[in-house]
Amino acid sequence: MKAMVYYGPGRKEWTDVPDPQILEPTDVIARVDTTTICGTDLHILKGDCPEVESGRILGHEAVGTITEVGAAVTELKVGDRVIIPAVTNCGKCSYCRASKPSHCQTVGGVGWIFGYMIDGTQAEYVRIPYAETSLHLVPEGLEDDEVLFLTDALPTGFEMGILNGQTKPGDTVAVIGAGPVGLGAIMTANLCGAGRVITVDMDENRMRKALELGATDMVNASDPDFIEKIKALSPDGLGVDVAIEAVGVPATFDTCLKIVRPYGHVANAGVHGKSVDLPINTLWISNVNIAMGLVNCNTVGNLLNMVRSGRLNAKAMATHYFSFDEFEKAYDLFSNAAEHQAVKVVISR
Amino acid sequence: MKAMVYYGPGRKEWTDVPDPQILEPTDVIARVDTTTICGTDLHILKGDCPEVESGRILGHEAVGTITEVGAAVTELKVGDRVIIPAVTNCGKCSYCRASKPSHCQTVGGVGWIFGYMIDGTQAEYVRIPYAETSLHLVPEGLEDDEVLFLTDALPTGFEMGILNGQTKPGDTVAVIGAGPVGLGAIMTANLCGAGRVITVDMDENRMRKALELGATDMVNASDPDFIEKIKALSPDGLGVDVAIEAVGVPATFDTCLKIVRPYGHVANAGVHGKSVDLPINTLWISNVNIAMGLVNCNTVGNLLNMVRSGRLNAKAMATHYFSFDEFEKAYDLFSNAAEHQAVKVVISR
Amino acid sequence: MKAMVYYGPGRKEWTDVPDPQILEPTDVIARVDTTTICGTDLHILKGDCPEVESGRILGHEAVGTITEVGAAVTELKVGDRVIIPAVTNCGKCSYCRASKPSHCQTVGGVGWIFGYMIDGTQAEYVRIPYAETSLHLVPEGLEDDEVLFLTDALPTGFEMGILNGQTKPGDTVAVIGAGPVGLGAIMTANLCGAGRVITVDMDENRMRKALELGATDMVNASDPDFIEKIKALSPDGLGVDVAIEAVGVPATFDTCLKIVRPYGHVANAGVHGKSVDLPINTLWISNVNIAMGLVNCNTVGNLLNMVRSGRLNAKAMATHYFSFDEFEKAYDLFSNAAEHQAVKVVISR
Amino acid sequence: MKAMVYYGPGRKEWTDVPDPQILEPTDVIARVDTTTICGTDLHILKGDCPEVESGRILGHEAVGTITEVGAAVTELKVGDRVIIPAVTNCGKCSYCRASKPSHCQTVGGVGWIFGYMIDGTQAEYVRIPYAETSLHLVPEGLEDDEVLFLTDALPTGFEMGILNGQTKPGDTVAVIGAGPVGLGAIMTANLCGAGRVITVDMDENRMRKALELGATDMVNASDPDFIEKIKALSPDGLGVDVAIEAVGVPATFDTCLKIVRPYGHVANAGVHGKSVDLPINTLWISNVNIAMGLVNCNTVGNLLNMVRSGRLNAKAMATHYFSFDEFEKAYDLFSNAAEHQAVKVVISR
Repeated sequence: MKAMVYYGPGRKEWTDVPDPQILEPTDVIARVDTTTICGTDLHILKGDCPEVESGRILGHEAVGTITEVGAAVTELKVGDRVIIPAVTNCGKCSYCRASKPSHCQTVGGVGWIFGYMIDGTQAEYVRIPYAETSLHLVPEGLEDDEVLFLTDALPTGFEMGILNGQTKPGDTVAVIGAGPVGLGAIMTANLCGAGRVITVDMDENRMRKALELGATDMVNASDPDFIEKIKALSPDGLGVDVAIEAVGVPATFDTCLKIVRPYGHVANAGVHGKSVDLPINTLWISNVNIAMGLVNCNTVGNLLNMVRSGRLNAKAMATHYFSFDEFEKAYDLFSNAAEHQAVKVVISR
Repeated sequence: MKAMVYYGPGRKEWTDVPDPQILEPTDVIARVDTTTICGTDLHILKGDCPEVESGRILGHEAVGTITEVGAAVTELKVGDRVIIPAVTNCGKCSYCRASKPSHCQTVGGVGWIFGYMIDGTQAEYVRIPYAETSLHLVPEGLEDDEVLFLTDALPTGFEMGILNGQTKPGDTVAVIGAGPVGLGAIMTANLCGAGRVITVDMDENRMRKALELGATDMVNASDPDFIEKIKALSPDGLGVDVAIEAVGVPATFDTCLKIVRPYGHVANAGVHGKSVDLPINTLWISNVNIAMGLVNCNTVGNLLNMVRSGRLNAKAMATHYFSFDEFEKAYDLFSNAAEHQAVKVVISR
Repeated sequence: MKAMVYYGPGRKEWTDVPDPQILEPTDVIARVDTTTICGTDLHILKGDCPEVESGRILGHEAVGTITEVGAAVTELKVGDRVIIPAVTNCGKCSYCRASKPSHCQTVGGVGWIFGYMIDGTQAEYVRIPYAETSLHLVPEGLEDDEVLFLTDALPTGFEMGILNGQTKPGDTVAVIGAGPVGLGAIMTANLCGAGRVITVDMDENRMRKALELGATDMVNASDPDFIEKIKALSPDGLGVDVAIEAVGVPATFDTCLKIVRPYGHVANAGVHGKSVDLPINTLWISNVNIAMGLVNCNTVGNLLNMVRSGRLNAKAMATHYFSFDEFEKAYDLFSNAAEHQAVKVVISR
Repeated sequence: MKAMVYYGPGRKEWTDVPDPQILEPTDVIARVDTTTICGTDLHILKGDCPEVESGRILGHEAVGTITEVGAAVTELKVGDRVIIPAVTNCGKCSYCRASKPSHCQTVGGVGWIFGYMIDGTQAEYVRIPYAETSLHLVPEGLEDDEVLFLTDALPTGFEMGILNGQTKPGDTVAVIGAGPVGLGAIMTANLCGAGRVITVDMDENRMRKALELGATDMVNASDPDFIEKIKALSPDGLGVDVAIEAVGVPATFDTCLKIVRPYGHVANAGVHGKSVDLPINTLWISNVNIAMGLVNCNTVGNLLNMVRSGRLNAKAMATHYFSFDEFEKAYDLFSNAAEHQAVKVVISR
């Protein structure tokens, strides 16, 4: 089969590789019908994740159709259309039993393994371990691109941003960064009743997209008074209830600390490469809470219900469509997302 | 001043009474600018609440302007426009300190006292005890009718229905009864991320109103298969996550028990006159939760934020407008709400 | 092997049956080292559960040692000592993914299947389906009888009583019924910080046992003023925060409704044979919550931690010990528990 | 009257000052019967809080008897014995209505004002603003020293440590620092069902006191392997569920980050003078939560119930007793707490 293979920093190719095989009775093999590219894939390509071996197939987001099932698979069957989430759930370790597969101990302590520790979804076929505890059936009547972003960007924005921020009805929420994860938070903020959703970025195009997708206000972070402008959007001016970091650099984390009100929440959804300074000498008295982490994908079922009832237009994140034989082109475009006003790409057979 | 005075079962009059006076340092007097009528007022008039004394001014919902403040009032001042919620919060008993004024011990064990234990809001002026712990300022730019229903119908539907039902993102919610409280639940269901909101009633007009206000589906309770039709609207057919009772009779409570899925919630928001049969012989194994109670109005601030940000159109419940000198007419119409397709009336100076 | 087989109402025998076999790759076979008898087993014997087939091996509580594993079993191995909880967790249906196996859809909608829908644990060997998602390893250094009651009586009292009652620090908790489940609630009440734990029963022996196991007060339900006496034990006399029903008859359920304070919780842990009257005409205003359900055994890990740290003496529930060849004798004694002052029996190889 | 007056850094005196007067209708005056000294008082004396004016009476913890009430005071009366918590609750701002007086907006944005923004409790009499929303009656039968530490050290350890750490049954909790607040956390850890409570300090005396008060294990932080030793005390060796910082320096905060398991909680209860480094480049994936803040004293009622039922021996924190005329001596001893093996001092009339 064809697959997008990583050959060390800066090197990848859509090339021929052997088809995946069932290795464990709990595995299934799925034909990948539609997949996408994540910012994390670009990080791996830059060499930021030296633990990824050369020869690894990239990708951790897909919608597919089951072609083969292991001997222990009883509920899923060949032909089932499935959502393949970024995180694998073994179902049996203490974390997975508690619905927190982000730290699945069975697969090594971190539940994200596709396109990282094992071969991923940017391929014609993929082996899916612990399939029955990890996959979700695509409900009848939904197209691939209507559920594709339920595999990572939307649940990350929702779980690590909106839910970790303990967003409650009427809250003022600021989302710093309007990339896919930030937009994922913006698109799901209303699921917890956010009153006002402020998009904060330096790229006006992205913020306009955010306004389309559910933000109620925008503040440009290049404005020297942007901190005060964000705080002024809260009903009493004391700051936001929830500040979501969706960039991954010290400056944006610091912005969150500056705009959050007493008893507010900072929810970090960005992937960071440097440590940050935490001014706990002033914050200790603030009753602020700081949350962070890897997505569990344990809200995929909830989000799917919202897509089914028409209350979540998950597809709206898709800006560009490609076929598998344009995979390299899709990478080129996504690597320069801002200049193409790209949010997420959809790559299908 | 003029006020709507109760003179015993079946007897009321918009008549002259003495102006209210400050009695305690924590009181304020407010000019009533806009008020409304509640189903409970009709119950009192029918004689269902013999504890209400003849001579009592009716009403427990209003928007007003402060005209006088007691000696202990420091934050509110003459001229402030305020929302006057149905429930009084003394701020100091164990219930009020825990934000549960529905059982304020200082005012007698039940926090609803306006138009019941003390003179109410269907008057030109009203004395408001524990004003600073009970009232909310009307934010600049909002009209009376945009916040009027935050005094009772909306928080009752939200707190006793949606929140007591522990509604979470993606849930299927059925609301039995499409009167003001049922509609209050329907209008606020999306604040907790309801995926599907089913209005159940026998009056098609009311259900059509419910669809306008946020319901996604309707099922007519006079249909012999209505139980199965409601259950079929849940993603897996097992029943609804949240069944909200907003009528107050045994049959509708029983409907809730029949449509709720294992691990679902029955939230009773109706006022009942009879006991019901609870088939705990079949339900004990169901992991169903049954909640009930009087509104606290402790979400008025959250709902107000939603109104300010334009995400809650609280005014949509208003179907008919009257002036104070048409008060009797307003009562006549509201007493025959169904035939006039009335939901709530707005009565202003 | 030998097993305790049910042959229809009133008929059971410790007799020879074929050894269990691995049927699915996710199964394990365990040698039963220690088991016990539950009140539910007696119900089955009385014929109260006609759905139980003749020939069924009884029992749903055991500690055992794995003797054989299915092909999909990767973490458990032959020789592992395991706790076998009453409820089976498939790990893959929507309920099990949410840590609520009490309504496992894969095994038929109710997660309790041992000694009911499939052969149980009152045998020399038992087949355990979905073993890796259901079992818990016995930590080194703990004896069988120190963890045996973590299979049902303790988690039922804790989950359906204390947790469903939303017990919080300082609460007054009343437990109606001092049988195994009631005692399970009493023994775990302090895990949620109960301030006062009142045992209510008509059998003084049982209540004295309850006092030994953690109750702080006792009230005899045959006292004509027992309702008032219970309420008087709450700090303000308004009633208890949490009323736990652990008997299963209308009178004790009604007691719970009478002793609970406004905003209190009624948690039903009893198995009922009749419906009850719910006076919702007086309760609707009370902000009382009523919970009920089948145990999930999803707190076995937490309880095990308490046993390991010495903070929960789970073994204290054991009053009588037997060997497998005294199985009939054990049944005889447990069938007359009150007269023998028996709480739970321990039956070992 | 006599009072302990602050006259700038390093200068204080037990001296004559005018008696306090009722200033607002919601005030009461209380005779101080028993008070204590807090580490914060020593910070003020060192000059760490330049915002404290010379002439300020110190202290924010006391038990007293009401001698005079303002015109708006209806529930409290002269002669009532009251617990005077560190934090003032106006009852009417948005924070106090939500039971979070730590950020009371009416008294300036921070609810701690006694001995800081207004005259404090180290005096023969004290004026108490917003008395009825702030004070708690001392239940009959309890001595002053049995409830004195419910004013600050115990609720701080409980709310900012145990509750902010979201401690749940069976959790492994490590408390870094065995001063009064750390001990407060240790003494209340069992209210949330902590399975193992590890005291971590460099002073063996303090840790032995911690073991007396409820810790199950001790690890000396001067041991080069102390991080690994702490982690080894968790059931699976992955680290603690809850790490409580009760010192206030970067090294101990860093310890918390190192010992916490994935999905664990760091709860900061220490007062910090410097910022800290947060290695979010490694922590972002950890699903760790960091909480911090000023106590609300909104659990005083819960803790009081535990003292009443005999389940919390709040008095055990008292190591030295003094009379008012030994006030200077009490300060001398408490300033050298370690050398006197002092935890808290009790100073009474």
